[in-house]
Amino acid sequence: MSDNSLLKGLKANIGVYTDPEHNLYIDSASPSVEELQSGSSLKHGEVVVKIRSTGICGSDVHFWHAGCIGPMIVEGKHILGHESAGEIIAAHPSVTHLKLGDVVAVEPNIPCHACQPCLTGRYNGCEKVLFLSTPPVPGLLRRYVTHPAVWCHKLPDTMTFEDGALLEPLSVALAAVERSGIKLGDSVLICGAGPIGLISLLCAKAAGAEPIVITDIDQGRLDFATSLVAGKPGTLKTYLVPRGKSEEENAAAIVATFGGVEPDACLECTGVESSIGAAIFAVRFGGTVFVVGVGKNHMTFPFMRLSTREVDLKFQYRYCNTWPRAIRLVSSGILQDIRKLVTHRFTLDNAVEAFKVSADPKSGAIKVQITNDA
Amino acid sequence: MSDNSLLKGLKANIGVYTDPEHNLYIDSASPSVEELQSGSSLKHGEVVVKIRSTGICGSDVHFWHAGCIGPMIVEGKHILGHESAGEIIAAHPSVTHLKLGDVVAVEPNIPCHACQPCLTGRYNGCEKVLFLSTPPVPGLLRRYVTHPAVWCHKLPDTMTFEDGALLEPLSVALAAVERSGIKLGDSVLICGAGPIGLISLLCAKAAGAEPIVITDIDQGRLDFATSLVAGKPGTLKTYLVPRGKSEEENAAAIVATFGGVEPDACLECTGVESSIGAAIFAVRFGGTVFVVGVGKNHMTFPFMRLSTREVDLKFQYRYCNTWPRAIRLVSSGILQDIRKLVTHRFTLDNAVEAFKVSADPKSGAIKVQITNDA
Amino acid sequence: MSDNSLLKGLKANIGVYTDPEHNLYIDSASPSVEELQSGSSLKHGEVVVKIRSTGICGSDVHFWHAGCIGPMIVEGKHILGHESAGEIIAAHPSVTHLKLGDVVAVEPNIPCHACQPCLTGRYNGCEKVLFLSTPPVPGLLRRYVTHPAVWCHKLPDTMTFEDGALLEPLSVALAAVERSGIKLGDSVLICGAGPIGLISLLCAKAAGAEPIVITDIDQGRLDFATSLVAGKPGTLKTYLVPRGKSEEENAAAIVATFGGVEPDACLECTGVESSIGAAIFAVRFGGTVFVVGVGKNHMTFPFMRLSTREVDLKFQYRYCNTWPRAIRLVSSGILQDIRKLVTHRFTLDNAVEAFKVSADPKSGAIKVQITNDA
Amino acid sequence: MSDNSLLKGLKANIGVYTDPEHNLYIDSASPSVEELQSGSSLKHGEVVVKIRSTGICGSDVHFWHAGCIGPMIVEGKHILGHESAGEIIAAHPSVTHLKLGDVVAVEPNIPCHACQPCLTGRYNGCEKVLFLSTPPVPGLLRRYVTHPAVWCHKLPDTMTFEDGALLEPLSVALAAVERSGIKLGDSVLICGAGPIGLISLLCAKAAGAEPIVITDIDQGRLDFATSLVAGKPGTLKTYLVPRGKSEEENAAAIVATFGGVEPDACLECTGVESSIGAAIFAVRFGGTVFVVGVGKNHMTFPFMRLSTREVDLKFQYRYCNTWPRAIRLVSSGILQDIRKLVTHRFTLDNAVEAFKVSADPKSGAIKVQITNDA
Repeated sequence: MSDNSLLKGLKANIGVYTDPEHNLYIDSASPSVEELQSGSSLKHGEVVVKIRSTGICGSDVHFWHAGCIGPMIVEGKHILGHESAGEIIAAHPSVTHLKLGDVVAVEPNIPCHACQPCLTGRYNGCEKVLFLSTPPVPGLLRRYVTHPAVWCHKLPDTMTFEDGALLEPLSVALAAVERSGIKLGDSVLICGAGPIGLISLLCAKAAGAEPIVITDIDQGRLDFATSLVAGKPGTLKTYLVPRGKSEEENAAAIVATFGGVEPDACLECTGVESSIGAAIFAVRFGGTVFVVGVGKNHMTFPFMRLSTREVDLKFQYRYCNTWPRAIRLVSSGILQDIRKLVTHRFTLDNAVEAFKVSADPKSGAIKVQITNDA
Repeated sequence: MSDNSLLKGLKANIGVYTDPEHNLYIDSASPSVEELQSGSSLKHGEVVVKIRSTGICGSDVHFWHAGCIGPMIVEGKHILGHESAGEIIAAHPSVTHLKLGDVVAVEPNIPCHACQPCLTGRYNGCEKVLFLSTPPVPGLLRRYVTHPAVWCHKLPDTMTFEDGALLEPLSVALAAVERSGIKLGDSVLICGAGPIGLISLLCAKAAGAEPIVITDIDQGRLDFATSLVAGKPGTLKTYLVPRGKSEEENAAAIVATFGGVEPDACLECTGVESSIGAAIFAVRFGGTVFVVGVGKNHMTFPFMRLSTREVDLKFQYRYCNTWPRAIRLVSSGILQDIRKLVTHRFTLDNAVEAFKVSADPKSGAIKVQITNDA
Repeated sequence: MSDNSLLKGLKANIGVYTDPEHNLYIDSASPSVEELQSGSSLKHGEVVVKIRSTGICGSDVHFWHAGCIGPMIVEGKHILGHESAGEIIAAHPSVTHLKLGDVVAVEPNIPCHACQPCLTGRYNGCEKVLFLSTPPVPGLLRRYVTHPAVWCHKLPDTMTFEDGALLEPLSVALAAVERSGIKLGDSVLICGAGPIGLISLLCAKAAGAEPIVITDIDQGRLDFATSLVAGKPGTLKTYLVPRGKSEEENAAAIVATFGGVEPDACLECTGVESSIGAAIFAVRFGGTVFVVGVGKNHMTFPFMRLSTREVDLKFQYRYCNTWPRAIRLVSSGILQDIRKLVTHRFTLDNAVEAFKVSADPKSGAIKVQITNDA
Repeated sequence: MSDNSLLKGLKANIGVYTDPEHNLYIDSASPSVEELQSGSSLKHGEVVVKIRSTGICGSDVHFWHAGCIGPMIVEGKHILGHESAGEIIAAHPSVTHLKLGDVVAVEPNIPCHACQPCLTGRYNGCEKVLFLSTPPVPGLLRRYVTHPAVWCHKLPDTMTFEDGALLEPLSVALAAVERSGIKLGDSVLICGAGPIGLISLLCAKAAGAEPIVITDIDQGRLDFATSLVAGKPGTLKTYLVPRGKSEEENAAAIVATFGGVEPDACLECTGVESSIGAAIFAVRFGGTVFVVGVGKNHMTFPFMRLSTREVDLKFQYRYCNTWPRAIRLVSSGILQDIRKLVTHRFTLDNAVEAFKVSADPKSGAIKVQITNDA
């Protein structure tokens, strides 16, 4: 390990923390430079990644502000961040598919490889998964992180660290588009024009959905959605969800926006009850409402509509097996417009400011990324 | 037509009616004997069926008592009944696959064959379907009915009229088992031990589900379920749903009844919110809760559980393409135990009494059938 | 009918015929102008279409030159053509969704709506289907044709007759892309750069396949393929299949063209044994070789490779439920480049010349269309 | 480890070998008793299994007689056997789900958990799999074997070692029934009444296939098949494949045996070209021919029949994720009749004789098992 010039001149490892008192601050983090340089932190199959770009996710802000997401609770000081790319600066001798200096995107999970979900190819349901940034597993907003090599995906030269950090939210949308069964020529409703809604829009267009209608309660977001796909062939229409209308009324207006045809499927990216309800009323007999967004613990749905229309109601929890596909689609240019989502960039030293901008609806921020040049 | 001895000596056609005032009575019905004997009621592709056995469905009782099911409202005098088998007593010359005297089960729908659901093989979603006994389309509780031959399924000699009338509720369960994707060796939860729950139990066993747990709020029904499958290989356990437990508590007790393993799928046959909720908490990551039962217009579900467990929530509306399969399974003996569900039999003249017994929880009735020898 | 100005001034109806002696000629055809003007040829649900554009299919040329395709044999004088669009010039009073003057694409099949394939949504497998231009059912290369309205698909103003006539070969490719399960980010091999291969290429790109490799034995066709997708994001590479290489060698070269990664799926559009064999060797474990092309009655495949790699070998026969989707995709611009395939146009009077050009490999023709202004 | 009484009094470890010269003999094998008692052979996650019952597979005989199966070649002295159950006699401290004395069935593969097939839940396609008894990986016909605990499946008290050893061939059939998509009420053709055909028959019946037709060239095997399912509800018919008939003729006779209805699916368990061809001609439009059997490197199939009938041709390579399901189905009694397949039993000392009986068509042996009491 002594010959590894990448381990020389490392800065002290730091991380971006929150805690049960809703503080947000930077503090020292492990592994320490001493551990890194001695190699003592590296186990079989592991690498050390110097994190270079990390996106802030809505869940990061939520852990900071609310202290929990459902059953996942911040109970001590806790490092945030799970959308990262970086550079390999050390590797255990057992690692063969990565070498020093490789640029990688980090898939932020460590499943057990032995439970039924793992063995059947749905490791996002692993019973023992360690998901980085979900308490109590520390996240990726650090300078240096040790991670299993199998969950570090090498990027081609055509992709930047920033691109690599976008693969995590892209993975959510790719999993949704794949599991929802959307196919060439399907009419698709997308509810919500936040980051996941916008990436889902790009994915749905790339998958040949036609026509697409996207909804939001904010005209500015709809305008951004329109500009995001400007110049691409195919149809995008927008529907500004007004206050005070019923689910049935919004559904009727959505179907009218589709030209009077009920959509085949909906990618629901808001997690809001009334939006899901409108989608259930809007889709065709046998259609699918695929819920990507998260929300309240309990929700009320129009049961008899679901029943008499055989609407499939499906849900998404993280992702699995998406990174290789995501890399192909971004590097080839098919999903290159995902880059337009990065509206703000901060250095790791200014991470607290980055979170404030990310959390401020007036900032106009879509995706805020934090860079680290250490 | 004059040579057709089957049209001689017909009794006056009668039907079993309800109306918006919740009356239940027998009155004259069309087609009249004159129309039948002259052949004037027969159009291209149609046959006349002398109805011989008809089961009473919970929906028949509901139309009588409540006057509606969701958007389907009894607005005039209305003939009930959609679970029937009978005998072909006349046929339009264009009909080739049926002949006079054939015993048939009646599939009680007339879809349009031209809309998207029809052309894609899901004619239960036909935009223009006529479903017999759903207002304002008159039902099958008549002596004589004109029906398209394509929806009359010839029964082999091994099947009785009573068997034939059971194919309609069996179709609901077959559609559910098929669309829920239950396969050999899947662990399956069945909620509700009423007629559909019991038939679903027989179907799930026939499809190789193992183990099976069935729930109900009535121990007598659970005992009947146990007796229904006595002597068959495989595991059936029962869970008596107690009053006052939460959905999570019932789910935990259900999983314990499975021996600590979360079931792969649930066939939900109650349509009751708390039962669906318990099923959502009980199934494994990636499992399916397949809702066969109908219920309230709106229901509240544990959204975050659905989301973090990727539970597919699916629904059933009637059935399609089930009759040929149902006939094979009953006539071969695989589902012969469905016959045990017929607990009471009445003649058409006594139809009002038959409905009273069917509607009385204390009667012990599971499936009441009405016979017609006219 | 006397008020219908569209039925005035009709020319004599003619058709393009072949016969068992391999002649190709124009002759009078039914329905006659008298039948059209009297309305005597119109049955319930039917319309009269003035055919305006018709593409020549390889199967049309094959019926002319070889007199048969497998079990389908030209046994008398026989009208060719099944890729057509036109104008509604008469309609039976029972037709409600089309009106005089509507521009429609003709789906050239008349299924029975009653057999198991029809009722399960796969009407291309109808046991009694009448497929226009398959002997003995006369084809669409006529001035005027009577057809069921349900199989005439209204085109929006943005689409031409020429576009409409392209929907039939597009339907073949759409069915293949859908049934092969190709999804966003799948790596896809396309074998053959003839008309169906090229349209499949456009569809695979529109469905987000990445990367794509297309093969052919003719460099000119590969160059056309490259030019067809020039300017679109994503990767297309070509592989010129050399003479004399084994299936394994071609497979290895194809995988190398993919950058060393075995493709997820193959759309096999040649129907040539050695090409299918190479595809079987090329795809990944669990991949799909989807055979669109037709060919010899018997073929030899590498069985143990199929077996030890769990390669799914699937096949396509015509299409079902593709027209509405095809119309959306062409009219929205997503598949507008399909228009580039029409390289030659002839009037109906010159149909014989059109067929000669279509059949001549040296002509450079990809899709030859025949127009009718009568 | 010194307290482990199960490691006291072990006999010398031996194995059943073949070699490139087609010898078959018993010789000493690793791990040695010394290694076992010192614990030096146990790595993280591993256990030591005292093998108690092992079935002989056709592939074991083939390696002995032919020296290879396709690309898998016996190049040195090689231990056979991969159908085994035994007793845990030692475990690495990292193993938590098994304890000393547990009875387990051995799943004879060690996949890498990192390649695309592994991560997507199809570890039978693992690029680096070690499959026990496939050269050069030694098999299970030993007294003592070290194996990863994750691939040792605990058996309930209701199952014997003999039952456990049957789970491997059962896994092949379960994977075939699952991947072929056979469902309740499907009509199913099974080609071949050898061990895999017979187990597939039991599985197809347990999955509710109706009717079933099984074929073979040997009437004795067909009689055994009939006796195997005697007393179960449902229909089994047999078809004795005569010499000299064409594939079409056999297909027609098979369809006639089905009562004139084309089967939905075929489980092809012979791997013989003419049998596969007959199945292709027999299944319905859109049906599936699922090939479980292995055979010649190349085979000739009726291509145009596959094409014009949209027959899916699928293949099976080993299995994945079948053991837990298999245990449920045998222990519950649903598949208890699989026990009837064990016709002969020998001790490990007499393994050579066991192989001779297994290889002798005149012996009447279906499944020969080798027991080890050491």
